[in-house]
Amino acid sequence: MELNPRTSRLKRTPPPGSVPGTFIMPEDALPPKVVVYSYDKNGVIEKNLGGIEELKSHFSEFKHLYHWVSIRGIGDKQFLEGLAEYFSIHRLVLGDIVNVYQRPKLEEHAKHLFIVSRMLYQNSAGEMFNEQVSVFLGENYVISIQERHDEMLNPVKERLIHGKGYIRSSKPDFLAYAIIDAILDLFFPLLEKFGDYLDELEDELLSDIPKRRFMSEIQESKRELIIIRRTIWQERDKITDLLRTNTPLITESTRLFIKDAYDHSIQVMDIVESFREVTSSLMDIYLSSVNNRMNQIMKVLAVISTLFIPLTFIVGIYGMNFQRTNPVTGEAMPLSMPELYSPYGYFSVMVVMALIVCVQLYIFYRKGWLGKT
Amino acid sequence: MELNPRTSRLKRTPPPGSVPGTFIMPEDALPPKVVVYSYDKNGVIEKNLGGIEELKSHFSEFKHLYHWVSIRGIGDKQFLEGLAEYFSIHRLVLGDIVNVYQRPKLEEHAKHLFIVSRMLYQNSAGEMFNEQVSVFLGENYVISIQERHDEMLNPVKERLIHGKGYIRSSKPDFLAYAIIDAILDLFFPLLEKFGDYLDELEDELLSDIPKRRFMSEIQESKRELIIIRRTIWQERDKITDLLRTNTPLITESTRLFIKDAYDHSIQVMDIVESFREVTSSLMDIYLSSVNNRMNQIMKVLAVISTLFIPLTFIVGIYGMNFQRTNPVTGEAMPLSMPELYSPYGYFSVMVVMALIVCVQLYIFYRKGWLGKT
Amino acid sequence: MELNPRTSRLKRTPPPGSVPGTFIMPEDALPPKVVVYSYDKNGVIEKNLGGIEELKSHFSEFKHLYHWVSIRGIGDKQFLEGLAEYFSIHRLVLGDIVNVYQRPKLEEHAKHLFIVSRMLYQNSAGEMFNEQVSVFLGENYVISIQERHDEMLNPVKERLIHGKGYIRSSKPDFLAYAIIDAILDLFFPLLEKFGDYLDELEDELLSDIPKRRFMSEIQESKRELIIIRRTIWQERDKITDLLRTNTPLITESTRLFIKDAYDHSIQVMDIVESFREVTSSLMDIYLSSVNNRMNQIMKVLAVISTLFIPLTFIVGIYGMNFQRTNPVTGEAMPLSMPELYSPYGYFSVMVVMALIVCVQLYIFYRKGWLGKT
Amino acid sequence: MELNPRTSRLKRTPPPGSVPGTFIMPEDALPPKVVVYSYDKNGVIEKNLGGIEELKSHFSEFKHLYHWVSIRGIGDKQFLEGLAEYFSIHRLVLGDIVNVYQRPKLEEHAKHLFIVSRMLYQNSAGEMFNEQVSVFLGENYVISIQERHDEMLNPVKERLIHGKGYIRSSKPDFLAYAIIDAILDLFFPLLEKFGDYLDELEDELLSDIPKRRFMSEIQESKRELIIIRRTIWQERDKITDLLRTNTPLITESTRLFIKDAYDHSIQVMDIVESFREVTSSLMDIYLSSVNNRMNQIMKVLAVISTLFIPLTFIVGIYGMNFQRTNPVTGEAMPLSMPELYSPYGYFSVMVVMALIVCVQLYIFYRKGWLGKT
Amino acid sequence: MELNPRTSRLKRTPPPGSVPGTFIMPEDALPPKVVVYSYDKNGVIEKNLGGIEELKSHFSEFKHLYHWVSIRGIGDKQFLEGLAEYFSIHRLVLGDIVNVYQRPKLEEHAKHLFIVSRMLYQNSAGEMFNEQVSVFLGENYVISIQERHDEMLNPVKERLIHGKGYIRSSKPDFLAYAIIDAILDLFFPLLEKFGDYLDELEDELLSDIPKRRFMSEIQESKRELIIIRRTIWQERDKITDLLRTNTPLITESTRLFIKDAYDHSIQVMDIVESFREVTSSLMDIYLSSVNNRMNQIMKVLAVISTLFIPLTFIVGIYGMNFQRTNPVTGEAMPLSMPELYSPYGYFSVMVVMALIVCVQLYIFYRKGWLGKT
Repeated sequence: MELNPRTSRLKRTPPPGSVPGTFIMPEDALPPKVVVYSYDKNGVIEKNLGGIEELKSHFSEFKHLYHWVSIRGIGDKQFLEGLAEYFSIHRLVLGDIVNVYQRPKLEEHAKHLFIVSRMLYQNSAGEMFNEQVSVFLGENYVISIQERHDEMLNPVKERLIHGKGYIRSSKPDFLAYAIIDAILDLFFPLLEKFGDYLDELEDELLSDIPKRRFMSEIQESKRELIIIRRTIWQERDKITDLLRTNTPLITESTRLFIKDAYDHSIQVMDIVESFREVTSSLMDIYLSSVNNRMNQIMKVLAVISTLFIPLTFIVGIYGMNFQRTNPVTGEAMPLSMPELYSPYGYFSVMVVMALIVCVQLYIFYRKGWLGKT
Repeated sequence: MELNPRTSRLKRTPPPGSVPGTFIMPEDALPPKVVVYSYDKNGVIEKNLGGIEELKSHFSEFKHLYHWVSIRGIGDKQFLEGLAEYFSIHRLVLGDIVNVYQRPKLEEHAKHLFIVSRMLYQNSAGEMFNEQVSVFLGENYVISIQERHDEMLNPVKERLIHGKGYIRSSKPDFLAYAIIDAILDLFFPLLEKFGDYLDELEDELLSDIPKRRFMSEIQESKRELIIIRRTIWQERDKITDLLRTNTPLITESTRLFIKDAYDHSIQVMDIVESFREVTSSLMDIYLSSVNNRMNQIMKVLAVISTLFIPLTFIVGIYGMNFQRTNPVTGEAMPLSMPELYSPYGYFSVMVVMALIVCVQLYIFYRKGWLGKT
Repeated sequence: MELNPRTSRLKRTPPPGSVPGTFIMPEDALPPKVVVYSYDKNGVIEKNLGGIEELKSHFSEFKHLYHWVSIRGIGDKQFLEGLAEYFSIHRLVLGDIVNVYQRPKLEEHAKHLFIVSRMLYQNSAGEMFNEQVSVFLGENYVISIQERHDEMLNPVKERLIHGKGYIRSSKPDFLAYAIIDAILDLFFPLLEKFGDYLDELEDELLSDIPKRRFMSEIQESKRELIIIRRTIWQERDKITDLLRTNTPLITESTRLFIKDAYDHSIQVMDIVESFREVTSSLMDIYLSSVNNRMNQIMKVLAVISTLFIPLTFIVGIYGMNFQRTNPVTGEAMPLSMPELYSPYGYFSVMVVMALIVCVQLYIFYRKGWLGKT
Repeated sequence: MELNPRTSRLKRTPPPGSVPGTFIMPEDALPPKVVVYSYDKNGVIEKNLGGIEELKSHFSEFKHLYHWVSIRGIGDKQFLEGLAEYFSIHRLVLGDIVNVYQRPKLEEHAKHLFIVSRMLYQNSAGEMFNEQVSVFLGENYVISIQERHDEMLNPVKERLIHGKGYIRSSKPDFLAYAIIDAILDLFFPLLEKFGDYLDELEDELLSDIPKRRFMSEIQESKRELIIIRRTIWQERDKITDLLRTNTPLITESTRLFIKDAYDHSIQVMDIVESFREVTSSLMDIYLSSVNNRMNQIMKVLAVISTLFIPLTFIVGIYGMNFQRTNPVTGEAMPLSMPELYSPYGYFSVMVVMALIVCVQLYIFYRKGWLGKT
Repeated sequence: MELNPRTSRLKRTPPPGSVPGTFIMPEDALPPKVVVYSYDKNGVIEKNLGGIEELKSHFSEFKHLYHWVSIRGIGDKQFLEGLAEYFSIHRLVLGDIVNVYQRPKLEEHAKHLFIVSRMLYQNSAGEMFNEQVSVFLGENYVISIQERHDEMLNPVKERLIHGKGYIRSSKPDFLAYAIIDAILDLFFPLLEKFGDYLDELEDELLSDIPKRRFMSEIQESKRELIIIRRTIWQERDKITDLLRTNTPLITESTRLFIKDAYDHSIQVMDIVESFREVTSSLMDIYLSSVNNRMNQIMKVLAVISTLFIPLTFIVGIYGMNFQRTNPVTGEAMPLSMPELYSPYGYFSVMVVMALIVCVQLYIFYRKGWLGKT
């Protein structure tokens, strides 16, 4: 899994000392695709917008409707500045949209709420993304700004268009909630995949050959969980803020749904915490299986050495050149290794060695050195 | 123990992007068995109910009684929706009943309290369950909704039918308390079993042969304790909420009993915490006994090697082919291994080697290498 | 030390599903010894009471005095129920007295305070106890209920009888404080013993032979400290509650003394925390000395092997059967091991080997392998 | 990296027992360079000041302007005392400026806010500094006092001179904010370098040869992160204090910008926390690769020993001197090592040994001992 | 360092069950040296006092002055009781003075503040002390009671006598502050020494020979840091209490100085925390260098074994007694070790073995086994 390209998270902040609220467009920022959905109980008008002027005229034309302005891509400075001017967005907030490593947070401004969410997901090609979604909730509009062109918010769009649930009969706060909840829901399939990955890793780990790559895979999982964990904690804090704020922009009936989203965030946190326990127990298992392997190697070495070293000593004895007769004086030396000259000497030595081996094997067996353990 | 089927806890949430409050019936949901117990000080009427209509007519017939509607099994969508309509249950709450991995919690609604408990128990066949029990406490009724058909709440039923304790002379809040407390009480036999299991594991661990499966058993115990711990923490939080809420649905006299339930939850937490300590000390014992084993193996290897290597060297010396006389010139070479030609040479060498062995054994004994340690 | 009989703490709770407030008398409960001390500034009347009726008549006879009813042993259900009725003790509280694994706590009731303490001590025979003491503080009485027949509260009795300190000239709240403080004071000799035990363990550990039993002894100390720690934390919380409560039963002057008891509880906590550090450092020392031992064993093995393996190789060379003359052709082979045929060959080889040994020993010495480390 | 010269942080406090507020000029304190920037919407006057008198006359001359007095170097006691007198700076505060190991903090005084920041940066020559910047924010002035002559606050100066952003059109509180934010911004390039360093270290660690210096490098990184972490926590607390204080010196519009600085501090904390995780995982990787290396060494030793020890035993057997005929009696001994006298004996032995090697190699291969692992 | 004589801290509490407020004079308590300094703006009168009567008459004589009664030594029960009576000191407080293991704390009484500080210092002879200093701050007096005769508060005395700083022109609260701050300042030289000690330890640890005593030295440092840490935390809490209390005994101007003392306590805590990190990293370094040493030993063993075991096998082969001719039949056996009979056989074998050694050395070099690591 690759949520955490190594130092990339450090690079996009504007250089130190720049004017606060400066926004330096990331080089790889995509051009915005702007779609507005204007709706009330009775229907939805969907329209692609070409620029800020078109947006303004659309808004003045459909004053009586609620609007969702969906912007995907942040690469058009002029457009964003026009947007900021039209909706009275503070310069610093504009900076937060473009300098895209903001933590999930809620800010109350005079005319709107500014809500930052982080969207962690895997696209159909298997790539991982950690994308920022900024949402503005005003009296009669919701603006969502995504970094990329993906269609992760399509389920919300579908529900809006098909009029499912409360979404079209409620005020825009419900739409904003729906977006936030949809982003939160994306954690579940991600964590499901993560869980499968950890289960696989555990199965491999228990299949007895500790490979070195496990180490770095476990470490990486750990770090990724830390990122997910931090994100979900901040999401939870944001939702708590949403529950506590007493802005008239959020209605009582929507608050109940936000409470539900809060429960979801707690669920995600529970899962993440249990995964952290799993990774730390994987680490323990890995270390213990490395240890075990060492033990096995030592055991083989000990068994072989202990079996053969005494035998080698014995055969060494009978390789000594003590003579029966002094070659010079011819004197007989009957104490010099008489076994060598006995007809059954060789045979007896072989038998003795076989016995030693048997006894040793029996001891090893009793000690459990011959088993697998 | 098997409280924690590996990734299962991730699967039942409705798919991301679905309408909030959607409930997708789990495939293996059981059809509901509905029983109503209508009671006052004087007696109890027990009746099996076939459907929502029967329930309604029963309620309107016995207006002056208190009712406990016990529902076991959540597999009938229509029934649940009828129930929700009759008792003004919010759609999101209905979702919480069916999407059965909710954490224990208390929600106050206009006409009732909604209380979620998790029931951890082992049935008579030894299977482990982590079941959700949802309780609604209204003015004159308690509704309990269980996932499964088990009879874990029977003790409460017995007390109600036999009129033991305050249960029939109090308002329904006491019944709700009795259900919550009965669920909490189920932790005790579970933990007793868990404790026995840990004691056994410890006994095995101390019986000297570290088997590899210990590792994964300890790890699994650890994870299960984490699940139990999280559940009991959340139960405690729920009970604290019950104590703090100022709804008129809970009477002062019942509050005292809830305080007692709070004490029970603290007791469970204490036990769980001490078990966590036990598992972590089991881990230490396991690792240290693996280490110990390594030490023993090394000791045997070292003793054998150290005993025989010098001896093998000595016999090697007397295996060298230095000659007494130069075979070509016939010149005598008296410095070449004179021991070989001494009558007591072989005998002396054997004695010297025996002495070396004795000295080494004495040293090993002093170092404590020959003991068991 | 044995504060923690393994699973016993799980057994005494009444079975799941029983009526709340049920009390199931533990089988080994002792029959109560009841003594009443009725006192005022001028003197003390001590009287053994046979039953609840005698108590009632004593109370009505000496209305103008303060009373301390000391009950040791909880094995008489009838007596306890009579007591509960006479002093308006709630059924749940009665259950707390008999189900004797309650945590230290303070409960305010209409007519009295209910205070649970845990008394950890070692009797003169060296046995460890973890006993529950329940105290009721009323307008003009204190009731103390102990599980066992021990005389650990005798110092308080002595002070009462001999009129030492404020005890007789104050209201019953001071007596209640004196009992609580006496129980708290019992931690000190216990911890002193524990400290001695840990010091001994450390001395043994540093005396160089890591025995396996250390492991389990350290683990057990750890667990016992956890029990003591939990108890003292809960005691402290209880005392804090006593300080904060605004019941008229506790006078301002006694509050000052309770503050002193609070300081004692903090002292105990400090000692317990430092003992926890000691046990964890004992663990470190144990592990490191096991490690060290391994190192020593390896060092001996390495030194012996490294010394002798090259020598064995050398003597092996001279054991090869290369011939000076081809036994078949009789041809001379002057390159075949000429050393064997030199008069000083053997001598030189021995010298060379001695040199090798010396050089190796010097290297080992430089590397510090010959020291003790 | 070298943020943490070992005990230096302990030395500069005035000696114990000195009068509070004493300031002992550090020996290496640099003479102050004083520059005043007096500005309003329309322009900036920049002036080098020679002494306190010049400062006073400048201030009385340009009463209608805002002033930034930038002081770099704290080595002139007389000047500082003059400054303190003119701006009513408390003696203790003066001490805080000179005893330069103050933690970041905010103090509210009658006529000004006193704000301490710590500036962590690397100058162009690669040296690391942990410098204290003290800021006074008054009605119409900001005084910044730096320890060293560096130009790290130049970006703020540039913005002031070129009138970029709100800086010249706002009150001095915005300038103070700009200074604090500029100092906070310096954490980012520092952490970027730190991140690169950790990435390099990880790459090296994974390149298979655990060098010993890694240990101390990781440890040092850990300690440096702790310093950075403590600093940024205290910075955050300071900023929180700035947000909470209700002094009229800070305007509502600036407060919004301070909130942005708060977000930056949170970002820095997130990065630091993730780096701490990285160092602890580096430690794990290091330890595991040391372990691994040990395993590899043992494996080589075991493979070689296990291959050759049996072979050496076999060749030892055929080196025994059992004779075919008794050299004394001439008696034939057909049981004595008949293989030696068979024409294919040697050949067969060699084949047998080759087979043993093959079998062993196969077993090792199956056990995975021949791979890299 | 020796701040922590092993169980001594447990012994001085009065025996369990004694009357609260009992004070049992420690056996080694020193007789008090009492000096009074009576001062106002204009001068100081210093007088040694012989007993309580002299004190009383001195106080009534100089009613218009402020007094500092400095008592060093607590061994005179009568004097202390006289003091308590004259200054209305509560019996429990008197106990706190004599039972000298009180934690730093602040108590407000009717007529004075009672402030306990712990003074950790090393006297000129290098001995460590952990002494209790009790301070009473009244309307016109300060009483300081030290356990020992040391002169650690002399700097305060000097400042008082020479009229430095605010000390003589302020009310007694400033004097009390000065004493508390002087005690706090003593932490700095202590920690400086501790830091030097840790630096030395680290240097030794990195100088490559892990000695066993390091283990216990690190452990001891850890425990001592825990004592220092607890003390400084409690000091900080005490100072916070001083800042928060609204007694008229503390003037607003002194409060500012107490804030400065608070900053000092934070500084000490920062240093202590960083030292804790250092000790834990020392532990890591120690363990890793023990590990490393093991690795080195194994490497030497492996290199030597792996070099010589194959060679020993080869020379073993040529030591086998396969004959060229069957000694009995005289039949030639050309397959039996022909190398032995080739003129260049010996030479070739030597060359082959030299080659094997070279190849092995090259492999070891490539694996980095020959370096130092």
